[in-house]
Amino acid sequence: MRIVDEAAREAKRTELLDAAARCFAERGYHATRTADICALAGMSSGNLFHYFPTKQAVLLALIERDGAETATSVTELAAADDPFGALLVLLDDVCRLAADSTYSGLALEISALAHRDDDVAVRFKANDASFRQSLEDLLARAAAAGQLDTDLSAQDAATWIAALVDGMFARVAADPDFRPEAQAAVLRRIVSQLLRGAAS
Amino acid sequence: MRIVDEAAREAKRTELLDAAARCFAERGYHATRTADICALAGMSSGNLFHYFPTKQAVLLALIERDGAETATSVTELAAADDPFGALLVLLDDVCRLAADSTYSGLALEISALAHRDDDVAVRFKANDASFRQSLEDLLARAAAAGQLDTDLSAQDAATWIAALVDGMFARVAADPDFRPEAQAAVLRRIVSQLLRGAAS
Repeated sequence: MRIVDEAAREAKRTELLDAAARCFAERGYHATRTADICALAGMSSGNLFHYFPTKQAVLLALIERDGAETATSVTELAAADDPFGALLVLLDDVCRLAADSTYSGLALEISALAHRDDDVAVRFKANDASFRQSLEDLLARAAAAGQLDTDLSAQDAATWIAALVDGMFARVAADPDFRPEAQAAVLRRIVSQLLRGAAS
Repeated sequence: MRIVDEAAREAKRTELLDAAARCFAERGYHATRTADICALAGMSSGNLFHYFPTKQAVLLALIERDGAETATSVTELAAADDPFGALLVLLDDVCRLAADSTYSGLALEISALAHRDDDVAVRFKANDASFRQSLEDLLARAAAAGQLDTDLSAQDAATWIAALVDGMFARVAADPDFRPEAQAAVLRRIVSQLLRGAAS
């Protein structure tokens, strides 16, 4: 019955990560105790340590899971017949994620922690580099399909798309009136002008 | 001799704030001791408490000073004959600030602290709201001078310029190869296309 055991173990691990994401987003990493995570996941207190040696290990696993999920979804988009259209869909997805208070709360918490925790910083920067590389690949495919009209390098374009995504999450943190989903059309417009508008 | 005393006191206070900015940017707020700030300012250890009751009071004074300096420089720019040109100059200034490791280090530290410290958050959000309001005023003057060609509201345009500024600082934190000053022309282009490019 090893396959069933492995699947059950994986399901429990996922439940713990989901619970940790909510705790870290809502009350902050430092204020969260492992017992809080277990309680939210409906497990008894010590149970977490069968899956993760420390609270920090839970955080690092969350960062790695987010990186893997982002990579998978960008790779799926990059395989589309219409790479530029896929990029616009990706921007809509980012607006939806920024509007999700657990996702944006966790993202902001991680970027704050990356500022002072080297283990977090290494994984945070690796996810960022991988996201920009995926964007560059998508842009190269759009260029090959004749969908772009810009003298900007794929690297600079990917950097500024990443800056716009970061800026969205920073707006959520700084401005209580900012509604990411209501701004999806403006984000699409900025990126379209950057990649297809005439150079000024 | 009260005027001389006041000027000397103000100069000492400024020296302490400059020293604190460097300490907070380089080693982080939590790792900085008030004695470190005094040492860098060339004062004996307890001296800081003649000017600020706590380390947190130093931090809050730094945030208020930054807000006041930003407001002054944007107000000066807004009085220019060419408001759109003034906006482009402002963007160049932001690139210069992002390239200054003390300024960007402190800005990133403050945004991280704002995430978990209510006193910091209140002042951080007030500075942000004031910056966006200044941008809106500048955009209104540019519109009145016939310099804009966009259907975007001044509020949305100010929000996205703020997002691009935030995004620049986030890039400094996430990407060791990002050079803000080398990207000034791209930032000018994005904002120009947003405000003067044809809507897609």
